[in-house]
Amino acid sequence: MDKRQISQHISKQYNEELEDLREKVLAMGGMVEKQVEDALQSLIDLNVEDAQIIIEKDAQVNMFEVKIDEECTQVLAKRQPAASDLRLIVAIIKTVTDLERIGDEAEKIAKMAVALAEDERTFSPQRNHLNSLNTLGKHVIDMIRLSLDAFARMDVDAAMDVARLELKIDDEYVGLSRQLITYMIEDPRSISSMLDISWAARALERIGDHANNIAEYTIYLVQGKDVRHTSIERMQQIANNKRK
Amino acid sequence: MDKRQISQHISKQYNEELEDLREKVLAMGGMVEKQVEDALQSLIDLNVEDAQIIIEKDAQVNMFEVKIDEECTQVLAKRQPAASDLRLIVAIIKTVTDLERIGDEAEKIAKMAVALAEDERTFSPQRNHLNSLNTLGKHVIDMIRLSLDAFARMDVDAAMDVARLELKIDDEYVGLSRQLITYMIEDPRSISSMLDISWAARALERIGDHANNIAEYTIYLVQGKDVRHTSIERMQQIANNKRK
Repeated sequence: MDKRQISQHISKQYNEELEDLREKVLAMGGMVEKQVEDALQSLIDLNVEDAQIIIEKDAQVNMFEVKIDEECTQVLAKRQPAASDLRLIVAIIKTVTDLERIGDEAEKIAKMAVALAEDERTFSPQRNHLNSLNTLGKHVIDMIRLSLDAFARMDVDAAMDVARLELKIDDEYVGLSRQLITYMIEDPRSISSMLDISWAARALERIGDHANNIAEYTIYLVQGKDVRHTSIERMQQIANNKRK
Repeated sequence: MDKRQISQHISKQYNEELEDLREKVLAMGGMVEKQVEDALQSLIDLNVEDAQIIIEKDAQVNMFEVKIDEECTQVLAKRQPAASDLRLIVAIIKTVTDLERIGDEAEKIAKMAVALAEDERTFSPQRNHLNSLNTLGKHVIDMIRLSLDAFARMDVDAAMDVARLELKIDDEYVGLSRQLITYMIEDPRSISSMLDISWAARALERIGDHANNIAEYTIYLVQGKDVRHTSIERMQQIANNKRK
């Protein structure tokens, strides 16, 4: 099923309402992706001013969620959607929850940027850890982008790629955490700032989880199958069924 | 609006379906609450066997979510609910997501119990921190119970109490984190196990967030107002409107 296959309704307005909802989700997704990107950059640059802007902007992300939820409820009440339309609405209600929480994690990263910037004493030893964090962050941002792309194109294969990326990110996260602990033990003066980096890494890892959730809703939307809590092998089977 | 005021439908079966959904949410909530309780206890006792049982049981929590979501979609398709019934379904779809994630956090706490138990060297100095963690945990479990209670009785006042408890828990969490950092700096050999306790505390704090989300869905359900991202003062105003 691709975008063109969204069931067409006699009511032109109903079609427009569904299309409008999809576009709003993608717009919210774009905003959230930007928040993560900017938050990561503010942390790498230890730029307090930029970090403050991100923290303030989270309210806009939150309002976006409330707005889309409202519209979903209205469409449910007015149009009484069935089959794939109903799945679209349910997938959107779930997706915006995850997008909002990605926004929350971006806010936390920005707060860590402020905390780290204020702890100047430990500035120089953090550099290489910030670089590792940056690598993790870039991969997580790829995951958000891919999961939104999968949703936009209703592309099950892209959604499957998100699940694979998540495993990779989990490994990177575990590796970085070990690095940080080793460093803390070697130089206890670094503990406080290493912990800040560690919280930021944790936030990135959670963003990966949320992107993965979004990809799973897309598979549900397209296939009508709930693949949450399913192994990648099983997900691949479900994806293959589509092509038979 | 209390439970007796759930709109009664001509179709007896429809009434039963809605009631069945509500009961399933409460049953899932009870299961999740037990998981958190057991996970905390396994951590306090450093009991690896108990912790393993909790980790295995998380799959049951996950299946519960998928099952309830399926039933909600079926009711939406078959009954085309409106007004308060529709809000009930949307609230349930959101609530089970948070319950499932509370389950995930319980699993993480159990994993920390395993990690801590294996790190015997630092056993004795952890005691007082485990006690602080226990206190935080008990309050978080109170929050889950209260939020489920608010949902069961559709009680806006109880839901408001959850929001108040969350502020308290955030303070406790920040206090405990500071304690742990101080301890790590004083005794770098403790870093690894202090971090495990710190992750567990973080998991508890997140459980509090999820319980708070559930309470907010209850307010939405009863009042038809979305109070997410709203200050406690504003929430109180909305709650008061009900009584006017």
